[in-house]
This record gives sequence, C-alpha cells and structure tokens, in this order.
Amino acid sequence: MSTAQYEPNVVLSNVEYDVIGTRPIRHDGADKVTGRAQYGADYNPTGLLHGKILRSPHAHARISSIDTSRARALPGVRAVVTAADLPETEAGVSVDYGEGAMDLAHMRQNVLAQGKALYVGHAIAGVAAINPHIAEEAIGLIDVVYDVLPHVISAPEAMRSDAPILLEGLRTQELGRSLDAPSNVAEHFQHSLGDVDAGFSKADVVIEREFNTATVHQGYIEPQNVTALWNNDGRLHIWTSTQGPFEVRGAVAASLDVPVSQVRVTPMEIGGGFGGKFPLYHDPVAALLSKKTGNPVKIVMSRKEVFEGTGPTSGSYIKVKIGATNDGVITAAQCYLAYEAGAFPGSPVGAAAQCIFTPYDIPNVLIDGYDVVVNKPKAGAYRAPGASNASFAAESVVDELAVKLGFDPIEFRLKNASKEGTRRANGLVFPRIGLVETLEAMRNHPHWNTPLDSPNSGRGVAVGFWMNGGSESSCTIAVNGDGTINLVEGSADIGGTRVSVAMQAAEVLGIRAEDVYPSVVDTDSVGYTSGTGGSSVTFKTGWAAFEAAQHLKEQMIDRLADIWDIGADEIELVQGVFRSRADKELAMTFKELAGQLNSTGGPIVGRAAVSPQGVGGAFAGSIVDVKVDPETGKVDVLRFTMVQDAGKAIHPSYVEGQMQGGAVQGIGWALNEEYYMGDDGGMVNSSLLDYRMPTSLDLPMIDTVIVEVPNPGHPFGVRGVGEVSIVPPPAAIANAIYRAARVRMDRLPMSPGAIMDAVWNK
Amino acid sequence: MSTAQYEPNVVLSNVEYDVIGTRPIRHDGADKVTGRAQYGADYNPTGLLHGKILRSPHAHARISSIDTSRARALPGVRAVVTAADLPETEAGVSVDYGEGAMDLAHMRQNVLAQGKALYVGHAIAGVAAINPHIAEEAIGLIDVVYDVLPHVISAPEAMRSDAPILLEGLRTQELGRSLDAPSNVAEHFQHSLGDVDAGFSKADVVIEREFNTATVHQGYIEPQNVTALWNNDGRLHIWTSTQGPFEVRGAVAASLDVPVSQVRVTPMEIGGGFGGKFPLYHDPVAALLSKKTGNPVKIVMSRKEVFEGTGPTSGSYIKVKIGATNDGVITAAQCYLAYEAGAFPGSPVGAAAQCIFTPYDIPNVLIDGYDVVVNKPKAGAYRAPGASNASFAAESVVDELAVKLGFDPIEFRLKNASKEGTRRANGLVFPRIGLVETLEAMRNHPHWNTPLDSPNSGRGVAVGFWMNGGSESSCTIAVNGDGTINLVEGSADIGGTRVSVAMQAAEVLGIRAEDVYPSVVDTDSVGYTSGTGGSSVTFKTGWAAFEAAQHLKEQMIDRLADIWDIGADEIELVQGVFRSRADKELAMTFKELAGQLNSTGGPIVGRAAVSPQGVGGAFAGSIVDVKVDPETGKVDVLRFTMVQDAGKAIHPSYVEGQMQGGAVQGIGWALNEEYYMGDDGGMVNSSLLDYRMPTSLDLPMIDTVIVEVPNPGHPFGVRGVGEVSIVPPPAAIANAIYRAARVRMDRLPMSPGAIMDAVWNK
Repeated sequence: MSTAQYEPNVVLSNVEYDVIGTRPIRHDGADKVTGRAQYGADYNPTGLLHGKILRSPHAHARISSIDTSRARALPGVRAVVTAADLPETEAGVSVDYGEGAMDLAHMRQNVLAQGKALYVGHAIAGVAAINPHIAEEAIGLIDVVYDVLPHVISAPEAMRSDAPILLEGLRTQELGRSLDAPSNVAEHFQHSLGDVDAGFSKADVVIEREFNTATVHQGYIEPQNVTALWNNDGRLHIWTSTQGPFEVRGAVAASLDVPVSQVRVTPMEIGGGFGGKFPLYHDPVAALLSKKTGNPVKIVMSRKEVFEGTGPTSGSYIKVKIGATNDGVITAAQCYLAYEAGAFPGSPVGAAAQCIFTPYDIPNVLIDGYDVVVNKPKAGAYRAPGASNASFAAESVVDELAVKLGFDPIEFRLKNASKEGTRRANGLVFPRIGLVETLEAMRNHPHWNTPLDSPNSGRGVAVGFWMNGGSESSCTIAVNGDGTINLVEGSADIGGTRVSVAMQAAEVLGIRAEDVYPSVVDTDSVGYTSGTGGSSVTFKTGWAAFEAAQHLKEQMIDRLADIWDIGADEIELVQGVFRSRADKELAMTFKELAGQLNSTGGPIVGRAAVSPQGVGGAFAGSIVDVKVDPETGKVDVLRFTMVQDAGKAIHPSYVEGQMQGGAVQGIGWALNEEYYMGDDGGMVNSSLLDYRMPTSLDLPMIDTVIVEVPNPGHPFGVRGVGEVSIVPPPAAIANAIYRAARVRMDRLPMSPGAIMDAVWNK
Repeated sequence: MSTAQYEPNVVLSNVEYDVIGTRPIRHDGADKVTGRAQYGADYNPTGLLHGKILRSPHAHARISSIDTSRARALPGVRAVVTAADLPETEAGVSVDYGEGAMDLAHMRQNVLAQGKALYVGHAIAGVAAINPHIAEEAIGLIDVVYDVLPHVISAPEAMRSDAPILLEGLRTQELGRSLDAPSNVAEHFQHSLGDVDAGFSKADVVIEREFNTATVHQGYIEPQNVTALWNNDGRLHIWTSTQGPFEVRGAVAASLDVPVSQVRVTPMEIGGGFGGKFPLYHDPVAALLSKKTGNPVKIVMSRKEVFEGTGPTSGSYIKVKIGATNDGVITAAQCYLAYEAGAFPGSPVGAAAQCIFTPYDIPNVLIDGYDVVVNKPKAGAYRAPGASNASFAAESVVDELAVKLGFDPIEFRLKNASKEGTRRANGLVFPRIGLVETLEAMRNHPHWNTPLDSPNSGRGVAVGFWMNGGSESSCTIAVNGDGTINLVEGSADIGGTRVSVAMQAAEVLGIRAEDVYPSVVDTDSVGYTSGTGGSSVTFKTGWAAFEAAQHLKEQMIDRLADIWDIGADEIELVQGVFRSRADKELAMTFKELAGQLNSTGGPIVGRAAVSPQGVGGAFAGSIVDVKVDPETGKVDVLRFTMVQDAGKAIHPSYVEGQMQGGAVQGIGWALNEEYYMGDDGGMVNSSLLDYRMPTSLDLPMIDTVIVEVPNPGHPFGVRGVGEVSIVPPPAAIANAIYRAARVRMDRLPMSPGAIMDAVWNK
C-alpha cells in the first residue's frame, strides 16, 4: 500500500551496475577528516546554559526526599529539575524508541528517578547553570535522603524467589498472560517448532551447557549530548547525537506530553552509536531546564556517565542443549535465555531467540526466553542486540558436537545449514539467503586452508545470523542546473550511508555518485524516517532514494516528451542519456536536460516515502587463529577473517568497514570487555582505561570476504550489513581457545583470569 | 509544461475560504520578537576569521598598483585578496541575479575593482584576520596608487559628448544594435504604441515637464553580511542575509567559476531587503579568503559601507509630455527616461517604462529609455524598481492636466483608467485588473470625502502600477502523526511569507494554519526556488504549496481508498474530513488518517516544483494630506491612506503591513531621502543620522484599504502585494504640496530647501 512498489524480479538478473559496487569517496569525508563536522558538543547557541545531572550512588534505594534549595541558591544556577517536573503518567502507554518499545512510565522513571533509584548512576535531578563548573558544584548541593535497599545485578539472582523486587508494579507476562505476584521477570516467552523431546530421542549425542556473559557497552567514542531550546511559541528544538531523530522526537514528545509536531530534532553528526544512541536520556531534562530558564541548555555526558547512565547491552545466563546423529544431522535444539534488562523491562532476549539456532535447519526446537530486571542501567541495543551472547552459547555447543562426532566444523555447519525454504523456530520460512555461500567461502578461504601449528595456538570458526530491519523512510531529490542532484534524507549517517544511499539514486539516473549531494536534515525538513538501526538505512533509505529517483526520471521524461513532442513511453534513460527508442538521432544527456528545466516549464523534484517489505536477513562467519599464553591466560588474536553475505554490496569499502568494526567489537566482547561490578552494585571500571576495549595494538588486520547473494526483496538486492559481523566472533574465539588450550569456555569475557580458572578447573 | 497546472476557473468562483483571509500569528513570530531568530551576523562557526574591505576614496581613478605586503605582514592577518584572485572573465557572459541580469565581467569588477575604481566605496581588496580590529588596521596598510580621473554622477552629465568614459569597452545598444563609439549610455530602447504626433495633435491641452530624482537607498536595518567556508572537498558554503539563496548560489558560482552544485547557500534570517539583498557583494571575497586560510570568514558591512558599497536605486532624469482633450480624454503620452545605472549597466529603466503610463488607456504612447553609467555604486533593485521615479513624473503631469481641464483628479483618472482589454505600450493586453475598483475605493473613502481646510494644507492623490513577478518555486510537505504537516520551502521570508504560504497548503487540506510548520531551508535541501523579489513569493511559493498539498491529498485519498477498499474517486476531502461521497457513514479526519499512515503502508510526502504563468499586476492609489510650512518649506504629512488591489489577500495583516511599509518608504523618498554627493563624487551623508529616513515621529498612522480583485491566473487569486504601494506616494505628496503651496515640484526629494527654491522661483 505504500508508494509504487518495486517488482522484485527486475533487478535480480545479472545487471551490470555503473555506480553500485564502486567505491566513491563519501560525501562527508572532508568534514570528518578535517574536524569540520559539527557534533552535538560543538553546538553553542547564544545564551547557552550548561546542564549537569545528579546520579544515584546506590544500586537500589528508596528516595525519601530531595531538597534542591541549596543548589538553587548557588550564584550562577538558573534552574533545577527533578521527577516532579515531568508530567504524570497514565499506565500502559508504550513508546517506540526505534529499537524496541518502552513503557512510558518506565521511560520517564529512567529519565529522572521517581520514588526509587534503581541503579548506580540513575539520574535524580538536573541543574542548569551559566557554566558547567557551577552546574557540577550545584549537583553536590542537592540533598537527597536515600533509604538503601538490597540489590540484584544478574538475571539468575533476580529470578530467585527471595530476590528484592525492583518494580513493585511489575507482573510477569507468562506466555502471554499476566501473573499475579510481583516479580523481576518481566516476560517469559517461548518459540517452539516440532517436538524437542522426540528430537533429542533421535540424537546419538546430546550436549547441554550453561553460559554466562557480562554486561558490555557499545563504547562509542562520542558521549551522549543534547541541547534543547523550548521556544516561547511552545516549540521545542533538540540538537543531539542520535541514530533516530524521529524516535527522539516521538520519545521527547511522549515524555513531556506534547504533540510530536511541537518537537523539532536536528541530528548532529554522530560519533558512534551501535544501537546505544536511540534511547532517551537527558533530552527531557534539558528541555525542562530550557523551559524554566528561557535559554538553550546543553548537557554532555562524561565517560563515567556514559557507562553508568546509558544503556549497555545485557549480561545473560544461557543454557543450550543440542542433539545430533552420528552422521552429523542435528535433530533437536533447546535453550533457556535469561537476559538482564537492567532496571526496566526490555532486554534484547526476543532478538536473541530469533537468532540463536537460526543458521541451522533443525526440525525440533524449543526456546524459552526471560526478560529480567536487575539493578543495572536499562539495557540498550548494541549491534545485533542479543545475538552475540546467544551465538556464543549455541556455536560453542555446535562446535563441541562437531568435534565429538568427528566432523570438520565447517562441513558440520554446511550439512545442517539453513537455506531457502527452511522453517525457523519463529514459524517464518526463509526466502533466498546466503549461509551456504558464506560457509563455502569460509571453506575455500586461504585462511582456512593454511596450516596453523605454532604451540598454544588454535583456529576456531563460528557463524551467526541477524534478521536486519526495514521500516519507514523518505527522500526528496531536486535537480541542479549543472546536471547534479541534491538528495534530502532523514537517516543519521553513522557508517557512510550518505554515499550508499546517494549511489542508489545515481544508479537510477545514470549519473556519478559524486554528482549527488546528500543532506541529512532535521525532522521538520523531511518525511518520516525511522532511525539508523537494524542495519536498515542502505536498505530502506536506499529504497526511498531509488523510488525518488524513479519519480524524478519519470518527470524528466515527461518534460523531454514535451520538448521533443513525442510520447513519454518512447523515451528511455540509459547510462545518463535520454534517448528516443525510435529515432536514434534523438538523444539528450541528463546534464543537458537538467540545464534546460527552468526554461522549459520549471524545476523538477522527485520524492518517495516508503515502508518497504522484503528485508533480507544476513549471515556471517568468522575464522580466527588465537594463541593462549599458558602462564597468564592472555589470548592473542593472530589472524581473523570475516565472511559475510551483504546481499548486494552497494559500497564495498563501507561493507568491509562494518565487517571489520563488528569483528573488533566482537573480539573486545570475547576477550576483555565487561562491566565489573563492585559489592555495592556499582560499576568499578567506568573509564576507558579500566574498561578494556581493543586497540589497534591488540588486533591483527581483519580480513574480509563479501559474499553477494542478492536480497530478492530489494531493488538492488541490499541486505543490511552493519550488525551480523559482531555475532560470530565470541564463539569463534571460544572455539579457537578450545583448540589452543583444550578448555571450553563458558563465560564472556574470556579474560586471562577466566581462562586460567578454566585451565585450573580442568 | 510544469507539473500539473491549476485550471483557473475552479477557485475564482465565490468560494468561502476557511484559512485564507484570516490572520493567524506568523510562524516565525516568537523568534523575531524574542531575538532568537538567527541573522547572518549571529553566525559564529568555530575558527571564524573576520574580513574587512578596502574601498576606493575616489569616484573615478585608475589603479596603478596595489601593494598588500604591509597588510599581510601584520600579526593576526591571515590572508589578503584583490581582483587578481578572481578568475579571468570571458566577455559577454550574463548572470541572473533574480532581479535583473548582469554581465559577468562587470559583476566581478564590482566585487573587486579591476584596473579602475568607479565610485567612492568601490571594493579594492579584502583582508581576513583573527578579529575585525586587526582586519580594519590591515586595510589601512594596503598601499594603492591611484591616478584620479574626472567623474560624472548624474545621467544628463554622463550623456554629454565630452563626459569622461567609465567603461572603455562599453558600447551603446541603440534600439537593439551596437554603436561604435565608447559611451556611458549602455542602452537606448523604445516602447511605442499608436502615433504620438497624431495623438498630441488631437489634444486640446498638452503639458510637458522635466523631473529629476535623487539616488535613494532601501535603508534596510540589517547591513549586508556573509560567512563563507570553502571546504577541503571543494564545496563552498555561504551563510548570508539574502532575498535569493539560489541567485546567490548562481552568482557566487559564476563569479568564482565553479559549478552551481559546488555552492551551498544557507539563507539566514533577513533584516530587510526591498530588492537590495539580491546582488553579490562580498560573498566571493569571503569565499576566496576562506580558500586561502582554510577557515570560515565573515564580513559584515558598516552602515557607511552599506550606503557606499551596495546598490541604491537610480537617480533619474525624466521628461513627460501628455495631451488630453477638453472632455478629459488622454490622447497621447510621451516620455524620456534617463536612469543612472551606477558604475555598471543595469538601471531599472526597463521596469520604469513598463509602469509609467500603464494606469491609463492611452492609444498613442512613445517611451524612450536610457540606461546610463555614472560614478556611483551600481544601482540595485528597490521596491517596484524604477516605478516610483516614473510615476512621480507622470502622475504630476496627469494631475496638472486634470487641474487645467477642470476635472476632479480621481474622476480624471477613472475616465482614462486601464482595464481588462487595455493594450499597453509594451504590446501586452491587460487581463482582469483592479485599477477601477481601486480608484472607486479612493473616491468612496472618508479621507477623500472629509474637507481639508486648514491653512497651508493640501490633499493630493496619485496611482501607480507594478507588474509583479512569478518564476520558479518548489515545496515539499510531509505529514506528522499528530495531523500537522511540515512544509519545506526555499523562499527567504522577509515579510511574513512563511505564514502566507502555509495558509495556502492549510486551505487545501482543511487544517489550521497553525498546523503547518514551514521551514525555509538551504539550497541543498529544496528544489530550485527563485528569490523573494517582484512580490512573487505568496504567488509562486503559495502555488507550489497549493500543488504540493494537492499531491499530498491525492496520496492520502489513495491510502484511504485502500483502507476502506473503495475507489479513490469516491472520496473527497472537505474541511479536513475525508468522506465517501456514497456512504455518509464513512468519514475520517485528516488527523486520524495522519496517525495511521505509518501502520498502513508508510509515510506520505507531497511535492511540487512550479514555474507558474498567470502573474497578476497590481495597482495602488494614495490619498495624502500635507501641510507646508511657508517659512521653512518643511512638509508634514497629516493623513495618509493607501488603497491597493491585492488580488486575494491571503493574510490581510501582512498585506496591510506591506502597504504601510511602502507608503512610509515612499514618503521618505518624497520628502527627505537622497544621496547627497560632494564635489569629489562621494556621498556626504552616509549615516542614518544624516540620511534622513522617516521615523514614527514624522508619520501619521497609514490607513489601508485592501481591494480584492482576484488574479484569474492564480488558484486563490493572489497578486503580488509587496511593491506597488511605494509607487504613488511621491506623486501624491507632490500633488498635495501643489494644493498647499501652489508650487509644482519637479524633483525628489521635496526637501524644505527644494520647496523654498520652488516658492522663490515662482
């Protein structure tokens, strides 16, 4: 029902592209490398006030009172806000963040604690002052009386019957119905396919293992920031680093109880997001401080605040059981997924369930998922949210099965691989997918075929799935007189999507990517565009650009039909030249016609607003060589190859960049990254010195192989490419460690201490 | 040939409008009254350098040498540019400014003098420094050796055979062909209708008079300003106060010899333009300084620089001869118009010729127009450019004829008034126009019918014509989920056009003007839109909004047809409610459907790009009472009524505002404003203290009467309203002075000295 939908069959033939598949320089390249790009922290409007946030020092505490009088009296302080300044909440209203919906009451409680502080770092109050130093000082003058309560920081702990309850009103949604008793389990759901008991009974070997993974952070370099100006006419303007300007618009409007059109969001450049730059943190606080003062108010988080006050991905407890026959056929798989949601419901356990066994065509599957609140920051999305934990568990067991049954790990996976027609545990049936091609590329890769025989070394593989996303997007295209086009879009550009979107318009019009000038504009200046998440932008905004370019092309052909006085259906556009099909002499370049538009009837603008179906899931596989120091347990990654089905790779360099980025984040998650929690329930290592992300010194060059199995649901065959590469690395590294050190690791991170524990336990 | 054209007959019926004709608060109101609106001078990007311009102290001089070494050596100076930094110019290339085209070589010479300085204030060099004070100091360290030449500052002077020649290469275009000899006359053209000699021979009375008018400035409060950043990727971003962002884009690109798409222009808010904020001044200088330094460079003019270095409107010499019969029928009219172009060709004499006799249906007309270069700043457009001078002359003679023939001045004009079908001297035939209705409204107005009998007082009337403009415009509209719309346009908003455009979209969709959120965006973010001049925006961008709203409406009806599963042609949108024509029960409000778009197929965006024909010319008439102090010659305006045909007044308050503004500027021009030139050819009174614009203390309340004779060429009947109100005031005041002091004034301004001269001469 959206605007003219593409007929999938047209482009899946072996079309030779002129622009797609090339590697032009990204349009924002110069701004990014010269430091000209404007990030949120760079925005300093006249009259700017600076905001700071008071945070809870307690993981779980009742707030008896908040006295802001000393803070308000400090010279230079202009306003203080607490939860009392937020609107009252009706129960049961849900707000879509772009990557998951959230209950409005919980969203407001997370913005500013109401009655209880639920994690160390939970925002309690906001102050605006004439400079950040005074604001910081004022924070220290707010007197909060806490009544400290016992806390829980892991899912198994929180699920115990004697666990302290975080949210008194929370009731478990147990397989679709609401239970009576207060609980920390927000939801228990099930995916079921076939009969697992029957399946396991057919297996010759059944392996069941338990796994624990730590909370990890996206680790984007740029901290969250927001500047808000609540204007005298009632309109609120937000400038912020976000993946989803329209989601911010919606969430800010909901949290403040104003219509969405009263909020205008300008997405500043974004220094990394990985899913973490969707949720709402201090935007409503900055807005309320602006309303009270009449001035714009800016809040920029410190690194410690980013760790303690934003949404890392879930720690998890996972139990996996898989059975296979002696001839290597998986007959059944079962798992128990308990994911930490943080202080409010909404972990990515649902996505984990969609991904955990999905690479395999298994007739009998049972998945139990639990969304569990704990006294940690509310979990956010992080690159293929939930899938890396799940695949770490499942792919470790698959590997163990392959070893036990005497199969080559790639051959074992190929033997059981999902393909077109495979029914998944969620009931969906796969269209054309590229897992077999990905596994074959791994098997044929020199990395896999080069012996590794240095001591204490091992090679592991794993594969992973991510479903990718689609949703709404809009695009307008105007023609310049010099034969170039200006393209307006609403997708925040994190990883080079200005160019990957521009290239799809260029392909339609037969012009160069460099002849497209893309602009990412604010929410007042473009049609609704869902956020940059779910690896969706090159798919959906590329589609919008494709449609808008088609719309433009139609109008240009109509114009030329007038000029040439022939029928529009007699004209075709081939490689940037309009031609009469009948009269070979009749030809005009796109550039020539562009130069004549204003004198032949006026300018031409094409537009599209789409909500495309046809999202194509993607598979990736990793091959990794590691060396484990037997004295210290330190793991060195010697070689790493990432193989991924991109569908059609619009701009291969940025696909490779995503693959490398995902691999590196997966390596960090595998080996070092974790929220190290103290006895008081607070994070002990909340700096980038102590929260150990991989640096270039820790990493080999990440080799990449792009597999191209075009997505039949997209005009150019695009699948999402941004996320799946983070899924296989932890499992691949665990499987490599097994071969290097003969220990099966059952937790993330596989830090030196964890490995020595495992070695000693063996 | 543009996008779907409106069928004029539909809306000209007596439609009752819901939004059009009401007076909602303008969308930019809060920003404007609170000081939040961002003007060019407010823009301070990181690393900003400040530019200053060295100007010629001589009205006419050969430049022997420019030595910038001392300036460049001054600490804090980052770059210096002169004409040598501009590209070389091929002859004969013309660039369209939006209000008139200009030869590219002349444009570059005006930006930075090449070889010769042609007026006091002519830019010679630009400096960028770390602050404006150092830049100012550096200007004084540039050593220029001038060879001073004789100068000419009026058209009659410059046309003398022994006059010094400004532009050695200039050849007169004499009735279409190029003459051989160097001359200061750029062009001589003629409009001719019938046979004036025969016409004058039929007249009983023929009056011939000569007039001189001084150079006057638009007097916008905000000086010209520009910030330029020439980025490392070759793209140039310009932030400036302009009426025409796309014209700036084109002119900057031409002046610097780069493609238009390499230039992005962000129109900042504008503190007045009146035609004067079209031409190019320091944009290329700021751009070159940015290119040399790698930093953004801002140049803001002082008031003295605005007077001496920008484009005032032409001083002129005009001779008018009109003949009429004793029964009051004008039989012939002839005029000689010599307009000062300033230092380069391009006065508004062409427009003057279009307007001078146009209020009258005269069978025999001969108009000779001369465009003459003089040693003054290049003339710019100023509200109905050229028409006020011309009408001052023509309407003085018409008044004298009426008196001589014993007619009431309004009745005399009514007797000869142009109407639908009248053939003009330029050969065009009038469609439906509103002059008769305007004159009748004047005749019926209490002001005209209230006796004025205080001593030394008199009442005068005059009428005037302005053709108005159209040209290209673009608009996109997106729907918000709360039932409001975001409207994107490219028209700089000088006088309230955000609201007058928004109202036309609102009318189509049956929503409130307040439910439209208009944004004026940069040239990368909207289709080509010609500038805010020629009173065109409410006409052309209103039309684009009308078309974009229709496009939106069609798509929403299509969506609803899907939802209701009925034919789209069965659905109508009436006052914001979609209804099935057949089933009265089937109804959905615009707001309801807006809220369902994303869940029923995706967002919807409408767009239009138009180049509408059908511009409707407008007439205005003034009634003015003055009192002349017989001792000093000072004129006080006692009462002023402005009557104007607006076509359909979209937002009456802003129509009235334009009428009042035009009246006030016309009063200033009539009584006080002039470039007072010293013997050295420089302006002596280049401050707002000495250049005497009317203040509120000088003025009565300006009464307004809007006449509505809808323009048959526009969907809602819009004519332009911004300019014609400046045309009649000088003549009306002259005619009032005649009745108060019995002198016929033959020059502008009619300052106390001029009046005393006239009295003594009599």
